[in-house]
Amino acid sequence: MTTDQLSTTFAALADPTRRAIIARLATGECSVTELAAPFEMSMPAVSKHLRVLEQAGLITRGRDAQYRPCRLEPAPLKEAAEWADRYRALWAARLDRLETYLQDMKAKEKSHARKPRRK
Amino acid sequence: MTTDQLSTTFAALADPTRRAIIARLATGECSVTELAAPFEMSMPAVSKHLRVLEQAGLITRGRDAQYRPCRLEPAPLKEAAEWADRYRALWAARLDRLETYLQDMKAKEKSHARKPRRK
Repeated sequence: MTTDQLSTTFAALADPTRRAIIARLATGECSVTELAAPFEMSMPAVSKHLRVLEQAGLITRGRDAQYRPCRLEPAPLKEAAEWADRYRALWAARLDRLETYLQDMKAKEKSHARKPRRK
Repeated sequence: MTTDQLSTTFAALADPTRRAIIARLATGECSVTELAAPFEMSMPAVSKHLRVLEQAGLITRGRDAQYRPCRLEPAPLKEAAEWADRYRALWAARLDRLETYLQDMKAKEKSHARKPRRK
């Protein structure tokens, strides 16, 4: 088992419900009940996802025993974004090549269209 | 089990060896033997990681039976980066607040230093 922060972050993000919880918390902190509302899920199921997010440091919970609001912590998301952004040059290069190819195709298409047809 | 692309991508990235393989392949395609060299790992262990990356669409393998070079496919990385970048505003705001706080501290420090001391 690996326990480095980035692996823990990516593992926590590898679930659509947990990503939806993050998207919700990005708009502001809220209670577990509010969080659970849009998901057709039992409270224990939502709590389990919250525990994974909390252990990964992606969220923190308030201390109040009655109302423990969940709050998004951006640091692990930042680290994940920075890791992925390192490879931005790769897909940018891929898009550049595609653009060049399309421009070549368009140029050929034009020169084709201009050619007078023999009757 | 979830099977959406983004979840599969994040699950594949949740391992330091697989991220190291991606970093190596970002410099150019290479064989499994070349890939395995820097890792103190058996070939089957490396092959297992490559299978995870291949199933996630993060790499493709050449067709030559003798030499099947691995090649990085940037599309899933791009999707992962775009997902994480959506939250960029969050940590930027956090840094802004920290900067404001530090400037306040510095301003207080200065006005403190300027105050003439009574002897």
